Amino acid sequence: MAAEMAEQPAILEGLAKRRHDLVAQLKTVVPEALAGIVLFARGSSDHAAIYGRYVFEVVSGRPVALGAPSLHTVYEAEVDYGGYLAVGISQSGQTPEIVSVLERAGDAGAKAVAVTNDAGSALAEVADVTVELGAGEERAIPATKTFTAQLAAMAIVAEALGDVPWEPGDWERLPDLVRGVLGDSERAQHVAEKIGDAPGLITVGRGFVYPIALEAALKLKETTGILAEGYSAADLRHGPIAVIAQGFPVLAFSARGPAAGGISDLARLLRGRGARVVEVGNDGTPELPVPRGAPEALIPVPMVVRAQQVAHALALHRELDPDNPPGLSKITSTS
Amino acid sequence: MAAEMAEQPAILEGLAKRRHDLVAQLKTVVPEALAGIVLFARGSSDHAAIYGRYVFEVVSGRPVALGAPSLHTVYEAEVDYGGYLAVGISQSGQTPEIVSVLERAGDAGAKAVAVTNDAGSALAEVADVTVELGAGEERAIPATKTFTAQLAAMAIVAEALGDVPWEPGDWERLPDLVRGVLGDSERAQHVAEKIGDAPGLITVGRGFVYPIALEAALKLKETTGILAEGYSAADLRHGPIAVIAQGFPVLAFSARGPAAGGISDLARLLRGRGARVVEVGNDGTPELPVPRGAPEALIPVPMVVRAQQVAHALALHRELDPDNPPGLSKITSTS
Repeated sequence: MAAEMAEQPAILEGLAKRRHDLVAQLKTVVPEALAGIVLFARGSSDHAAIYGRYVFEVVSGRPVALGAPSLHTVYEAEVDYGGYLAVGISQSGQTPEIVSVLERAGDAGAKAVAVTNDAGSALAEVADVTVELGAGEERAIPATKTFTAQLAAMAIVAEALGDVPWEPGDWERLPDLVRGVLGDSERAQHVAEKIGDAPGLITVGRGFVYPIALEAALKLKETTGILAEGYSAADLRHGPIAVIAQGFPVLAFSARGPAAGGISDLARLLRGRGARVVEVGNDGTPELPVPRGAPEALIPVPMVVRAQQVAHALALHRELDPDNPPGLSKITSTS
Repeated sequence: MAAEMAEQPAILEGLAKRRHDLVAQLKTVVPEALAGIVLFARGSSDHAAIYGRYVFEVVSGRPVALGAPSLHTVYEAEVDYGGYLAVGISQSGQTPEIVSVLERAGDAGAKAVAVTNDAGSALAEVADVTVELGAGEERAIPATKTFTAQLAAMAIVAEALGDVPWEPGDWERLPDLVRGVLGDSERAQHVAEKIGDAPGLITVGRGFVYPIALEAALKLKETTGILAEGYSAADLRHGPIAVIAQGFPVLAFSARGPAAGGISDLARLLRGRGARVVEVGNDGTPELPVPRGAPEALIPVPMVVRAQQVAHALALHRELDPDNPPGLSKITSTS
């Protein structure tokens, strides 16, 4: 896992180099009268899809949906995807239900985009355009380098949809921001010690960084089995805040921008309830800082590396093997 | 909470009586060339929205999205909702961000539907048509009667969208199925005793009953503070299954139909990992049975009452007051 985390800057550089060509290819398939966009994914890839969901809607100005695969694979719903762009995300390109729903969407009128590590995979085969991640084989069970590559791929798809809230120069800075995080792993170890043997943990985020809260919770579950659940800061207030008791650990992800105020308000509220809140981001002086230099819409890329570090460090702290969590396998088949 | 749970059959009867009029009103606003449907909600209402998401897509044959309110309230994204039906769900009709996003969607071209208890509320004011739930004031913090009414309201909206997978006669049976569950609370008490002092719990479902797994987890969190998390059976396999250890309690919701096999396979897998799995539904011989007589697409209504019973019983078992969980209030403001 640590070795694969270290590969992330180089993989991002690779994607940045292929960005122009990919955007040009993608532009050829985006429907002119775009009815909407739908994303299909599971697990970590689903969190990249949620990031895409936010960015695509801002950039395209049309509603974006996360598809429910069971509608197709279980209920065989007949859905007309005319006017839609459908994006399927799978690291291996072999997750059977994602391949099957992307194919169905394409047959039902959608233009289909595959985002995968394997340009020769079944997912790529059913797509009109493939964004090849170039992350290489991922050996550790918890996906890390594939995930940051998927985030970058979402940003590339966004560039084919309209005016994006970042500059071309940001692509050059992104790998260095990730290097900056990777070069500073001690802070994550301190956070892991603080979490210690807690049975549960909550992660929160809002807007563009909300999927990073979800991904952090998943990485922590995968590497340690801790009952980690991710929330949007807004949803947490609607009931689930009931689980926060004295000493309860919370990771609060926050990026400078219009969503930051809501997160710092929530962090204050949770501390008032006795929670041990660790702030992660580039707003104010967080305990786990993410280097400044990326706009809010791209900060998820270096930010998730902080989450990976905490998941890795907590596994080691608990004397577990982060690469091979018990009972998980790399390709998951669901129908 | 118990008193409000008991009101559910009568509220469903009230909605069934107004069904024809509501469907006729709704039909006048559904766009002829429907681009898609978007739902806006938070908390319990969001789980009713997820139920709507499945039913609407099957019935309308067009993609359905769960809207991300922060795109509007935080980022002020300019989204063109031309051709869309937008549905906002809020029990009070006063949740500020839901009112604000439904209004924005309407201003940007959507036909807007409000689903609320208060036909004079701000949410109703910004909508083209309002489905009044008629559930009356809900005093207990955990919403119960409003939630079943919201599910029924989603089914009514679905009838305005196309051919539904149920018969008119099912509306007459639904209140009795709920009465059947309410009249048999002892089994839920046994399940609560079985859960005992467990720190965490997982709920699973698939397809139409997936939102019931989510709602069950939320009710359990609200009434007891237990770390309960809900999953689709497919997502649980993609990583989160790592949290399931010896003796870990799982509530598996399953309805007779094409999704049932996946749930029973998962239940077997989880039992093999040592989980204490309680099956809830009308498939096979579950520990918490839901009376037969409703098609799969409507079974969520009586099924969620089982979840309410377990949440209520677990609170009493833990000597907590299910009506007033610590630190929760009825109307939640987020921006």
